[in-house]
Amino acid sequence: MKRHIRFSDDENALLLLDQRFLPLQEKWFVCRTVEDVITALKEMVVRGAPAIGVCAAYGCFLGARQVAELTSNGDWRVELDRLLERLEDARPTAVNLRWAIRRMRAAQEADPEMANEELQWVWLKMAKDIHAEDIRINKLIGGHGAAVLPETATVMTHCNAGALATGGYGTALGVVRAGVGQGKTIRVIANETRPFLQGARLTAFELAWDDIPVQVACDNAAALLLAQGKIDAVVVGADRIAANGDIANKIGTYGVALAAREHGVPFYVAAPLSTIDRECPSGAQIPIEERPQQEVARYGGQQIVPEGVSTLNFAFDITPASFVTGIVTERGILNPPFAQSIADAFSSTV
Amino acid sequence: MKRHIRFSDDENALLLLDQRFLPLQEKWFVCRTVEDVITALKEMVVRGAPAIGVCAAYGCFLGARQVAELTSNGDWRVELDRLLERLEDARPTAVNLRWAIRRMRAAQEADPEMANEELQWVWLKMAKDIHAEDIRINKLIGGHGAAVLPETATVMTHCNAGALATGGYGTALGVVRAGVGQGKTIRVIANETRPFLQGARLTAFELAWDDIPVQVACDNAAALLLAQGKIDAVVVGADRIAANGDIANKIGTYGVALAAREHGVPFYVAAPLSTIDRECPSGAQIPIEERPQQEVARYGGQQIVPEGVSTLNFAFDITPASFVTGIVTERGILNPPFAQSIADAFSSTV
Repeated sequence: MKRHIRFSDDENALLLLDQRFLPLQEKWFVCRTVEDVITALKEMVVRGAPAIGVCAAYGCFLGARQVAELTSNGDWRVELDRLLERLEDARPTAVNLRWAIRRMRAAQEADPEMANEELQWVWLKMAKDIHAEDIRINKLIGGHGAAVLPETATVMTHCNAGALATGGYGTALGVVRAGVGQGKTIRVIANETRPFLQGARLTAFELAWDDIPVQVACDNAAALLLAQGKIDAVVVGADRIAANGDIANKIGTYGVALAAREHGVPFYVAAPLSTIDRECPSGAQIPIEERPQQEVARYGGQQIVPEGVSTLNFAFDITPASFVTGIVTERGILNPPFAQSIADAFSSTV
Repeated sequence: MKRHIRFSDDENALLLLDQRFLPLQEKWFVCRTVEDVITALKEMVVRGAPAIGVCAAYGCFLGARQVAELTSNGDWRVELDRLLERLEDARPTAVNLRWAIRRMRAAQEADPEMANEELQWVWLKMAKDIHAEDIRINKLIGGHGAAVLPETATVMTHCNAGALATGGYGTALGVVRAGVGQGKTIRVIANETRPFLQGARLTAFELAWDDIPVQVACDNAAALLLAQGKIDAVVVGADRIAANGDIANKIGTYGVALAAREHGVPFYVAAPLSTIDRECPSGAQIPIEERPQQEVARYGGQQIVPEGVSTLNFAFDITPASFVTGIVTERGILNPPFAQSIADAFSSTV
């Protein structure tokens, strides 16, 4: 899969492959300001927790640059704070957005007198490092996850936790890619993932690009396919993982988990440790984003739902930890009980 | 809700409100031959097990009329047999199609020497009777089902088991209509029901028409909504019910049932006794229709899935009897164990 998040040193801009138009058109969305990045996140030009984190890091750099003209030191710092607060609010559920901004801010706070020019230099380098690190982490996740797949496996995935949801390579689809790389025979059933159709459009696009066999099914077919014994494993990503192992992920994930448990199919969540929010004790504390009604009511410019009928558009749901077979991280697979294995993973970090 | 299946004595034709274009356009599809009825069923101009049964009955009449010109008695009967066999194969899952044709054939077999003209007269009257009877039965189902709903209830339904799926009034939505008629405060969450969007388009259309509050949610939100405690009861229809109480219904029904059971929400199936196939011991023997891939791959003339990627399009799934709180029939609510209550319902039937 090609690079979909690029920083252009020539243009001094962040270039994003616009996911609203895939797979029909390949358009690039150019971000020169924090506002551009906020628009990209809100409008889902780019989505997926790790990708949001990477874009937020570049967004910090763009913010530092756009306030540089405010010559008084106090002024640019105040204005930058204001911009980054707005950036942090662009999407409520994914913890990686907050994680990336906090990491950038920590570098600034370590040297509060840093001049604007130096901060730009530091933050651009950090953003590129976070981007490269995300891909490296994805490959580690992929390797750990692929090891537990059978030699021949049909994997069901929901939404897009692929290259397009990360800096590149993917978390859930990283597991698939690594499995193929290990010589395993893997095919994927991609749930289409209404209303934004990340599965039908994005997961199918990037797997077909890499010649990995993929079939698309409607979300509501997941329980039947699992009952039919056609699926060897479910592998999904996560937007936030609570300290007890509860998983916030794209709406519909919980329904897949219910059916997987009923039919004895292992259910893996592939995500970097940065997706784990240790300040969040359980899924009950994770805010669930409600998105505009028209995303459900309309498709391709066409009204589906009768005029005057309202819709519900929750973007995420919570899968309780008890449904999860393992959380595949860059440090290996965390097993139940997750409160313990998550705590252990962090205590062994740095 | 207005009549959507009409027999025009003036035109001597069956007129169907074309459900492919709702809610955007109200077009009427005219059937003058069995082939027209087969097209209407296959292309989903009309769908829903009881409605399919009603249309099949009118189709028998249209068949008898179109073979009338074959003057030799032997010839018209042979040709009619051939036509009705094709009609019976138009949709594989709904048992009402077969049930209606068998009922019509029984009248013919009772008097094998009946002239074509007389058979036409008998069959048109029978078709109109089956149509009127279906509406009567729906109202009985509605009354029995409404009695078990709380005074104020949010009902989740899947697909369209409404007026548009029956001769009129509806099975699952008949329960809702009867509840409103009993003075209860009822609102409906309609799952959109990909890929044909019967919930978003048809259930929303006919409930809005009747001023019954309805909101549309994507299919994949059902588990979250049930987990949030927002749903008081699930009420769905059925395309075929096996002798043990296993339910074949629109793809996605089983996933809703899994979530309803997990969260203690009663799960009712509203269907006439004609939907019960006593020759079918369990859900494992019910054929699951696979429909064209492009129904999933395209929407509104627009490609969703990348070119070259295949899709899965099972039209139904099986909900095991153990997930069902009650089967609401015209003879009251059948309770578990269903093998017994179903047998009892039929032994008390003439």
